[in-house]
This record gives sequence, C-alpha cells and structure tokens, in this order.
Amino acid sequence: MKNKGSRTERELLHMFWKEKWSVIRSAGSGVIPIPNPDLVAGNGKRLLAIECKSGKGRRYVKDKQVKELKEFSKKLGAEPLIAVRFDNEEWFFLTLNKLVKTKGNNLILDIKHAKKHGITFNELIGKYKQRKLK
Amino acid sequence: MKNKGSRTERELLHMFWKEKWSVIRSAGSGVIPIPNPDLVAGNGKRLLAIECKSGKGRRYVKDKQVKELKEFSKKLGAEPLIAVRFDNEEWFFLTLNKLVKTKGNNLILDIKHAKKHGITFNELIGKYKQRKLK
Repeated sequence: MKNKGSRTERELLHMFWKEKWSVIRSAGSGVIPIPNPDLVAGNGKRLLAIECKSGKGRRYVKDKQVKELKEFSKKLGAEPLIAVRFDNEEWFFLTLNKLVKTKGNNLILDIKHAKKHGITFNELIGKYKQRKLK
Repeated sequence: MKNKGSRTERELLHMFWKEKWSVIRSAGSGVIPIPNPDLVAGNGKRLLAIECKSGKGRRYVKDKQVKELKEFSKKLGAEPLIAVRFDNEEWFFLTLNKLVKTKGNNLILDIKHAKKHGITFNELIGKYKQRKLK
C-alpha cells in the first residue's frame, strides 16, 4: 500500500512537472513525524498543498490529517486539496469543504462522490477552460 | 555523502518545525529527475525555497542548480536561498546574489564567505531581531 501510494504520488508529480508547474514531493515522516502534505505545486498564480489518496475502494481521510493540511497550507499561503485516484480512474481534486464526514469524524471518499464534487487534473490546471475559450 | 546530506536536511526540517513553520522536505529525484529544492518552508509571512549544502570543506553549487532554484521559486512565490552547514558550525543562509562564481561558472561556498555574507537560522526566522526589540 505504501509503495502504491508513492507510485501514484510520483505520477501526479510528473503530471504537474509536464505542465511546467514547480512541484515538490514530501520525503515522508522521517524519524520524528512532521505533518506535511504529499505534494506542493505552484505555477506563479496558484499554490497548492495536496494530500493524495489512491486505491481500489473507498478511501478515508482522518480528521486530524485534514486539520494538519489546513494549518500547513495557511502558513504556506497555499490552497489545501485532496487528490484521489481510484484504480482505473483519473485523478480527482476536492476542496476540503467537499468531503463528507463519517460517524467516526473521519472523512470518506468514494468514486461517485469524487466524480460529482471533484474536478479533473485538466480542470485544475486550467487546460479545459483554455480549450473551451479557443 | 548522500546520507549525511539527508541527515542535515532533516536537522533543518526539524528546526523550522520547532519554530512552528510549515516545512516540507523533497523526496529527491525519483525515476525521472525533477528539479526542486531540498526544503520549502513558510510561516504565513515568508515562503522560502532552500537548497542545502553540508560537509567539511568548500562546497560547490552548480550554475544549473542555481537557475533551477530560481525558476522553481518564482513559480512558487518563494524566496530562493542556499543553506550551508559546515562540520561543527551552525547553519548559514545566503541569498543567490551573495554567491561567488568560480572560473567554471559554478558557485563556491566556504565558511569565511558564509559567515560574512550569510545570516544564521535565528536571524532568518526573526528571533534575533525580536530579542533585540524586547
């Protein structure tokens, strides 16, 4: 699971890089865990702090993780986002207010919800809009 | 050398974290190398993109690395900085215009130059000034 997470994070890293964004991927927790997101990406106009989730079925985001992402992003001046990539699907990006809380106060992500409330990578980086404007 | 570099990078990561900055350390180049700095750190007022150098004697920064740091920082809206930690010395932080070019167009760092043109961690994060103002 950890390796798969790293693989999809690297995939997203390269997608931003290909679009000429500046992007950095976190080295992970290290000896003493320091809360930071998986990716930080910027293009001179927008700065994003992104927590990645990937896998087959439903994904969960811990309430604590959301709070840490908010705090991290605030100090960086970045927009906090959750990026989710279900198997055989493309990436979807959700703002934190689009997440649904479970009874246990954690947040839940499924493909239906992601497709309804999230935006695609091309929409995120503005490619789709540009194409429409032409 | 690689491990030592990682160790000093982690040291600096924790120094920022202890001062309540948001900080992320790069996972490194991965399969396809993507230019990004060792650390990105922000406190809500300042955003820094930091390339770390550490070791015993003189350190060199490649001209290409400086250009990449500049470009990365511009898109992130961050200040590009070189952080250098010589053995048994504290960290010194230098802006790119304070680096001296060698004949080979690379940039050179030694402890004398770092002490003269760099600032310490406490000066960087504003601790020293705050102490003086009290």
